[in-house]
Amino acid sequence: MKDKLIIFDTTLRDGEQSPGASMTRDEKLRIARQLERMRVDVIEAGFAAASNGDFESVRAIAEAIKESTVCSLARASEADIRRSGEAIAPAARGRIHTFIATSPIHMEKKLRMTPDQVVEQAVKAIGWARQFTDDVEFSAEDAGRSELDFLARIFEAVIAAGARTINVPDTVGYNVPDQFAATLRSLIERVPNADKVVWSVHCHNDLGLAVANSLAAVRVGARQVECTINGLGERAGNASLEEIVMAVRTRADIFPVETGIDTTQIVPASKLVSQITGYPVQPNKAIVGANAFAHESGIHQDGVLKHRETYEIMRAEDVGWGANKLVLGKLSGRNAFRARLIELGIEIESEEHLNHAFARFKELADKKHEIFDEDLTALMRDEAVTPELEHYRLLSSRFHSETGETPLAAITLAVGGAEKHAEAEGSGPVDAAFKAIESVVSSGSELLLYSVNAITTGTDAQGEVTVRLSRSGRVMDGQGADTDIIVASAKAYLNALNKLHAGTARLNPQVGP
Amino acid sequence: MKDKLIIFDTTLRDGEQSPGASMTRDEKLRIARQLERMRVDVIEAGFAAASNGDFESVRAIAEAIKESTVCSLARASEADIRRSGEAIAPAARGRIHTFIATSPIHMEKKLRMTPDQVVEQAVKAIGWARQFTDDVEFSAEDAGRSELDFLARIFEAVIAAGARTINVPDTVGYNVPDQFAATLRSLIERVPNADKVVWSVHCHNDLGLAVANSLAAVRVGARQVECTINGLGERAGNASLEEIVMAVRTRADIFPVETGIDTTQIVPASKLVSQITGYPVQPNKAIVGANAFAHESGIHQDGVLKHRETYEIMRAEDVGWGANKLVLGKLSGRNAFRARLIELGIEIESEEHLNHAFARFKELADKKHEIFDEDLTALMRDEAVTPELEHYRLLSSRFHSETGETPLAAITLAVGGAEKHAEAEGSGPVDAAFKAIESVVSSGSELLLYSVNAITTGTDAQGEVTVRLSRSGRVMDGQGADTDIIVASAKAYLNALNKLHAGTARLNPQVGP
Repeated sequence: MKDKLIIFDTTLRDGEQSPGASMTRDEKLRIARQLERMRVDVIEAGFAAASNGDFESVRAIAEAIKESTVCSLARASEADIRRSGEAIAPAARGRIHTFIATSPIHMEKKLRMTPDQVVEQAVKAIGWARQFTDDVEFSAEDAGRSELDFLARIFEAVIAAGARTINVPDTVGYNVPDQFAATLRSLIERVPNADKVVWSVHCHNDLGLAVANSLAAVRVGARQVECTINGLGERAGNASLEEIVMAVRTRADIFPVETGIDTTQIVPASKLVSQITGYPVQPNKAIVGANAFAHESGIHQDGVLKHRETYEIMRAEDVGWGANKLVLGKLSGRNAFRARLIELGIEIESEEHLNHAFARFKELADKKHEIFDEDLTALMRDEAVTPELEHYRLLSSRFHSETGETPLAAITLAVGGAEKHAEAEGSGPVDAAFKAIESVVSSGSELLLYSVNAITTGTDAQGEVTVRLSRSGRVMDGQGADTDIIVASAKAYLNALNKLHAGTARLNPQVGP
Repeated sequence: MKDKLIIFDTTLRDGEQSPGASMTRDEKLRIARQLERMRVDVIEAGFAAASNGDFESVRAIAEAIKESTVCSLARASEADIRRSGEAIAPAARGRIHTFIATSPIHMEKKLRMTPDQVVEQAVKAIGWARQFTDDVEFSAEDAGRSELDFLARIFEAVIAAGARTINVPDTVGYNVPDQFAATLRSLIERVPNADKVVWSVHCHNDLGLAVANSLAAVRVGARQVECTINGLGERAGNASLEEIVMAVRTRADIFPVETGIDTTQIVPASKLVSQITGYPVQPNKAIVGANAFAHESGIHQDGVLKHRETYEIMRAEDVGWGANKLVLGKLSGRNAFRARLIELGIEIESEEHLNHAFARFKELADKKHEIFDEDLTALMRDEAVTPELEHYRLLSSRFHSETGETPLAAITLAVGGAEKHAEAEGSGPVDAAFKAIESVVSSGSELLLYSVNAITTGTDAQGEVTVRLSRSGRVMDGQGADTDIIVASAKAYLNALNKLHAGTARLNPQVGP
């Protein structure tokens, strides 16, 4: 029988550190539920000590998730670890993941601590964490550039102190596979109590090698891989969960492990994360890209027809492609609507909430014949906006553009309680809409990024707009969806402004390996 | 002194096999010039025998490029090889790249040939190719699933017949790094005349391992890597040129090779390919993604400030970030405009052409204060449309949308010589515009994909719209750019229809390893 490979998903922690990818508590809950449905073993739900919002998110996930272990990251300090312990307290299975940097450059320049002090602090951290849970993970930040002797020493000490998982991250994405595997093999050999723990890796993708480094480590003894949906994460991101899982499964002949993942939930998870964070998945992304299973070339198509295996090493349906069902239309009733929301893991808080959402659904169904899961997700994201997150709201709008004339936008906004009206001209109707909003709001934000993707196919599809604003060093993404992309653009702009207004844009959101 | 690693770019051949990524001759020329500027060693310009258009593109690139070797792909048939030979004839350095499948499944199910017949055909192919050039490359298609004994046998035979480069592709992206490296090492050891040739690899990314497999092969003797800008290519694409080049450079301590690439041209090349093909680059893509060098987390920012190397293993400027210069504005003259186009490698065919383009530039500068390189690229792409590619043209338009009313579009088109007017309602102004166009054109196309990206930052940026249409099994992308995204959408739709009308959408475009 094969060893189990533990899949540790950090989309909600390292993934959220992507610029502008901050998520609300409800969005994190929706992703956590999808991860549980996919049978992820460990969900790193956040960094509880970062802010009250982070604490509340970790705690809400700990309360809601029953099947997966729920984990909070913590620096090696008593205060951080206590917050993590409190946040994971309601979990059926809770883990604390504590870390400290171990490379000479980090210890000297960032921590300003001696190696002895670092070992002492790490051992203390494990002790604090064990007061809250037996399931304690320790990470050596920047292990990829740390000295092997020192790593072996600190790992031996934290294992003796009660750590159950030892994580070896390549924080700056500097390693190559055989060298990274050699490091891990050497550590497992040198650490006398290595057999008491699960060895884990956490690789960054700066040189495009995160997945390969993780898999090389699995071949020499790693039994946990830390990864994210769509490879989201700081800079070039983390190892992609979908690539790790499908490589291990497709090459079962050479990997001595198997995962417990329900692979048919991979594409739905990818779409959900992309939609919530506004991060697109490029078409040529492995497994979850729109082209991953498409064959354009004539000869290849011919090959596929003649014998399926000629060019296919995986089946699209095994990773959940084609699950995009036409679910609802103009004639669908309230019960069908409610049932589909529950299937999608979307919480309905009250009858009033359901009635309001159903009214919005009917409005959409008037404009659009076929309502897909993605449409419901977008609609319910708008619905989920809480009053404190909706300081600015679009009440009505009018847009006009015509060859030879300057495009014009007229909008009416609710600002706090008051109704405000503005008109503006622009280089296009979107520019005019943003200028009209700014004439009311005067946020002084800079527009860094603007993109639109159709949520489904067909000309009546909703456009989903992502707007990235920057103000005083804060970066915030906003999303909006509508069948009218100018309206969707205005909603996305207001969504970003609302987040900036509510102070959910954090200058120093998070930390980590 | 280190060995040279030959960078063989196949963006124009394998990259073009991505669904909808077909490029015109002029677009291919622009990319080829950028590849030459980046000092790519070999440019695979296309598959000359695929169509007259492919032949003309390869030939035009062979005529224009002086520094890089220009290569054409050919099946192992006399007719294919002759077309390739004719196409590369004008090149300063020309290569023919011929291939045949060698895996049992491909020989039996696709070629329906015995192994002996396959060897005989391959040897003949080298002989035919050598009549045109000494620089002949041979690929064993699906080598990753071929028997090692048979590979060694066919490689020995084609080397004896005069092949100079032996390419070992992982056509279906099935390999993992150490196993792929072991295969290559074993082949180099077994083939008696292995030292007479350059060994090359060509890896696909279905499991996310294309770059890692290529680099593992380099460590055991491969001295050519086939790759593409942005990892473009069939399905999940090929190995990314930028990741290969930067891994070898950043880890000079462990790779025994160096490339001749001017890395500061990497980001400009990435943007050019993305803009021409309409394929977005996801923000968390290594090296060329918008976030690749961004640090969001507070602690990481703190680390970077304290000591640059704590989190940076590469410098953004080394790969060409920040080279996006503000070049032109409303007051720029004709000479500045012409000079910048030449710097961008955009050909100006005549004074008349320049005058027309300059008038368009002035129109744009009226709407948009700052004109960036990306704006010029988009503008000149519209300019480059030849009459046979402009059966349908947008003459004027009017769009109106207002809360509580159905969005309306009115357009006037030139169809052939005639002027046609139409109005339509839709679920949004883009839907209305497409319906108005269809009411004139009746193409019966299905809209598969719709996306918008702002070309630069700021609210007055041009929106660049990509539309993917499908008709009778043909798939075609169209692009359009304008400061008004509804106008850009209409242009993109017409661009795709024009390509379908001109018959440039090929059902069976290409072939290859």
